[in-house]
Amino acid sequence: MNSTRDIDALIEMMAKLPGLGPRSARRAVLHLIRKRELLLIPLADILQTVAATARECGICGNIGTTDICDICASEKRANGLLCVVEDVADLWAMERAGAFKGRYHVLGGTLSALDQVGPEQLRIPRLIGRIAQESITEVILALNMTIDGQTTAHYIADQLEAQVRLTSLAQGVPIGGELDYLDDGTISAALTARKEL
Amino acid sequence: MNSTRDIDALIEMMAKLPGLGPRSARRAVLHLIRKRELLLIPLADILQTVAATARECGICGNIGTTDICDICASEKRANGLLCVVEDVADLWAMERAGAFKGRYHVLGGTLSALDQVGPEQLRIPRLIGRIAQESITEVILALNMTIDGQTTAHYIADQLEAQVRLTSLAQGVPIGGELDYLDDGTISAALTARKEL
Repeated sequence: MNSTRDIDALIEMMAKLPGLGPRSARRAVLHLIRKRELLLIPLADILQTVAATARECGICGNIGTTDICDICASEKRANGLLCVVEDVADLWAMERAGAFKGRYHVLGGTLSALDQVGPEQLRIPRLIGRIAQESITEVILALNMTIDGQTTAHYIADQLEAQVRLTSLAQGVPIGGELDYLDDGTISAALTARKEL
Repeated sequence: MNSTRDIDALIEMMAKLPGLGPRSARRAVLHLIRKRELLLIPLADILQTVAATARECGICGNIGTTDICDICASEKRANGLLCVVEDVADLWAMERAGAFKGRYHVLGGTLSALDQVGPEQLRIPRLIGRIAQESITEVILALNMTIDGQTTAHYIADQLEAQVRLTSLAQGVPIGGELDYLDDGTISAALTARKEL
């Protein structure tokens, strides 16, 4: 008999979340148990709901609770622009910025010979299919500025360059960024892409 | 209509946990949704169970899923020693160390004139009651080495000094600790309490 078995199991599971370790999982669980009505019960309920309803959008790969996400369902967003991102988190970041009014395509990762991720494992064939179907005029490759991200961008560019205008996000100094804290690569890129005042 | 309303609500709730902010809550929720069978569903289930069963031990204040916790229920732990801690997390830390074989008493905080926490708001009257009921011979005051913790320890010592032997945890250099990284107070305490080799 162990009266804390369920609580221990909960702590162990919370510790598997990114950003939480065993120590912070214990603190989080104690916090939850103390705020039973305010936090523990609502959190348990919403987790059940999300577990039952969360799914990938059948078109772009965004995560939501409907078969087709709001962005793909909205006619307003069909402006011929398609923004290709690696991950749902990147799509959400773009949406928070609120600067992009077209649609998205989530690859679900990057090409990687080492991890045996080829175009078929990502949503690259479906991306190629969408270009014609949705009369896309411009594809914005908003992949991460990592080696894997840029390799994937080059591969996609090779596949699509005959069909559609291809662009990528500008590189440069982040808003609020201080030169002293920037890496050499960013400074070089910002200098190369310098603009007339 | 917003297809991500439930997911947004989940992220908002996760962000209220200690140790998680909005960014890490988003990452955690995406991780959960991706590991639906392995993590999301089991976590939702165990949260429901814990919400329904978690309670404070009626004797010591430990958190478990039974009315009386394992430690209070075990006759083996009735060795006349009672360890007083501020919080359930402290009790769990003592249990992980595995060095204490007696029973605990969780105060549920420290005395604080500013926050209007008096002896009645903590479990101090119940502590005084337990001394006679459980034939306690020694009370170990394992309160945090903070001003509030030590104030509370002094108050309890005043109440109990006529009835029972009172001790506190030793102060000194932590195991594996390096002098260079220790605060002055700890070094002074360790020097004052130095031992013959």
